[in-house]
Amino acid sequence: MSDNNFKSLEDTLDKYIPPEELREVKRILYGRAEDNPITFSLEATSLAKEVGVDLRGYTFTARKEDLRRPRIVRVGAIQNTVDIPTTAPIHVQRDALHEKVSNILRVAASAGVNIICFQEAWTMPFAFCTREKFPWCEFAEDAEHGPTTKLMKELAKQYNMVIVSPILERDSNHNDTIWNTAVVISNNGNYIGKHRKNHIPRVGDFNESTYYFEGDTGHPVFETQFGKIAINICYGRHHPQNWMMFGLNGAEIVFNPSATIGALSEPLWGIEARNAAIANGYFTVAINRVGTEVFPNEFTSANGQPAHKDFGPFYGSSYIAAPDGSRTPALSRDKDGLLVAELDLNLCRQVKDFWGFQMTQRLPLYAESLAKVTKPDYKPQVIREN
Amino acid sequence: MSDNNFKSLEDTLDKYIPPEELREVKRILYGRAEDNPITFSLEATSLAKEVGVDLRGYTFTARKEDLRRPRIVRVGAIQNTVDIPTTAPIHVQRDALHEKVSNILRVAASAGVNIICFQEAWTMPFAFCTREKFPWCEFAEDAEHGPTTKLMKELAKQYNMVIVSPILERDSNHNDTIWNTAVVISNNGNYIGKHRKNHIPRVGDFNESTYYFEGDTGHPVFETQFGKIAINICYGRHHPQNWMMFGLNGAEIVFNPSATIGALSEPLWGIEARNAAIANGYFTVAINRVGTEVFPNEFTSANGQPAHKDFGPFYGSSYIAAPDGSRTPALSRDKDGLLVAELDLNLCRQVKDFWGFQMTQRLPLYAESLAKVTKPDYKPQVIREN
Repeated sequence: MSDNNFKSLEDTLDKYIPPEELREVKRILYGRAEDNPITFSLEATSLAKEVGVDLRGYTFTARKEDLRRPRIVRVGAIQNTVDIPTTAPIHVQRDALHEKVSNILRVAASAGVNIICFQEAWTMPFAFCTREKFPWCEFAEDAEHGPTTKLMKELAKQYNMVIVSPILERDSNHNDTIWNTAVVISNNGNYIGKHRKNHIPRVGDFNESTYYFEGDTGHPVFETQFGKIAINICYGRHHPQNWMMFGLNGAEIVFNPSATIGALSEPLWGIEARNAAIANGYFTVAINRVGTEVFPNEFTSANGQPAHKDFGPFYGSSYIAAPDGSRTPALSRDKDGLLVAELDLNLCRQVKDFWGFQMTQRLPLYAESLAKVTKPDYKPQVIREN
Repeated sequence: MSDNNFKSLEDTLDKYIPPEELREVKRILYGRAEDNPITFSLEATSLAKEVGVDLRGYTFTARKEDLRRPRIVRVGAIQNTVDIPTTAPIHVQRDALHEKVSNILRVAASAGVNIICFQEAWTMPFAFCTREKFPWCEFAEDAEHGPTTKLMKELAKQYNMVIVSPILERDSNHNDTIWNTAVVISNNGNYIGKHRKNHIPRVGDFNESTYYFEGDTGHPVFETQFGKIAINICYGRHHPQNWMMFGLNGAEIVFNPSATIGALSEPLWGIEARNAAIANGYFTVAINRVGTEVFPNEFTSANGQPAHKDFGPFYGSSYIAAPDGSRTPALSRDKDGLLVAELDLNLCRQVKDFWGFQMTQRLPLYAESLAKVTKPDYKPQVIREN
């Protein structure tokens, strides 16, 4: 069976394992015996079918509190293929993705989504593998006033939805620097701010420092009408300290828009964003592309293989994890999907109060230790046999 | 199906899923399509049967290098029940555990193990749930000269094996303070040093600060003849920054001796130690008890349930994870077990060189950020809609 033909881990488990044992398997693997699916309206499911997107939704609950009302929010994540050839003119490629994702946004609105996030660099193919500057740099646009943000501001307002829009940014106020950036737009259609990818890979097909460097925007949390959100872009998910800072700044939901392939990272995928949810007491939303993108010129992948024009399929499998360690099933490995989760954000503080990691984490010790480690003459703490 | 009757996640997967699809399931869930079991000698398997311990072993390989020879090490982890009643005299309980684990050590020696670690506070039942000081404090003993270390020094020398022995420590040089401590003994039978549990839980049945406080030994790495090892005791696995510091000090294998129960942590178990292996470029060995321990006097678990004399079974499920994100199957949820992994430690640096996290982790940024966060007047980085 090739990598490509395996559609979904969850479908296989559901298909073969008898119901009673499946409950135990799911309790251990997913943190809950039941998936708790959302039943969407006929309108939403029909529209999803019409648009051609796999709509799935799941509910996370929290205990009732006396002093706070439940804070119920529907969060959405979109994974999608890039259908138009990468040889088309840049504006044609971008317009096609604008249209495709706008259609999925209609489904999200119909499914009652309050906050949505798209995949990393969603307005373009993930062309960084080519290491060619042209024409790909043309996709970079202004975070606040570019055509993508302009369109998303309209749709955010129309749908009363917070939109997290990860794009390739060009900052003309700083000498035309390029960044990998997530733009946050409020449900009123206003630009709230942006976050620039903190950790930049240099591995295999992902030598992204060819195009942009480590982000200079810190670890901002965006206070929206529906909750406090942050964005850990792609490779930043490998760095627990990046996740941690978003938590220390008060995030309740952290999105992880990504572009990653099976050979590189698939066994890590279910681990990292979920570990972050557990360690930091917030929800995480892991989003990956689907499909194979073919580029005009061949390139090598630094893995001993001959030059080629694609580097294999992105495996999708987007999922949402909760601070109590439970998670949704994943979207498929190969199809456009819209994943919705209905969350009670009160769960964040409840889990923190239960486990107490915020009190037991000994931050002063680590502030001091890291300050020492970063000195060039640092001597690791090693104990040897006398 | 009750929690108790479900023996092992892996057994269920192996039983129901057809071979070809099982390969994909294992690739995604365990990071490799094959378990790569070790074939042990007849002597080892016979002895394991005689001793009554479930012996399992798996191999992890690394690429051949020109300048370094392979650094092959066999690592062992023991999970075991406490069979003798907790009402027996303290010395009888301790002697029984000494004998039981010494027998399993014979199996380990026969299986070629070079470094072994036992479960947390292995010389005693996990009596901290009772919050009674007596008689349980009597289990505390001197780390360097106590009876357990004395016995383990003999066995370490006899078997040419590094032993990590997590005990309840009493430090009579510091006014009889008690600690949760792992003692490291070299294969020559020498005491190398100790590490004290850095993060202490206060949750449910685990209000351990009743007995001992946060460790004061930093994040030592012990350089042994077979590799550089460290110990992250139990609840420290919830804190990524704790794992990180062991990595920054050069650990190649980090043991996580634990005592944890299903209702509290089972869905987190497969995530945390494995995430640490990925993020820090070392092997992790997650060890948990098995069985149910019944105490003389009833106690409550701060969960609304009536007082009781046990808090349910420890779920075992010990496993070993590699820096490339792959892992072994787990030992069972309910039986004594000895898990062995044959590692090539060269994999640690190879994975670090491949992913480059050690270069992309931006430690100075986090040293600075944490220093700010720890100030009482810290203002989180929050961006609001204008």
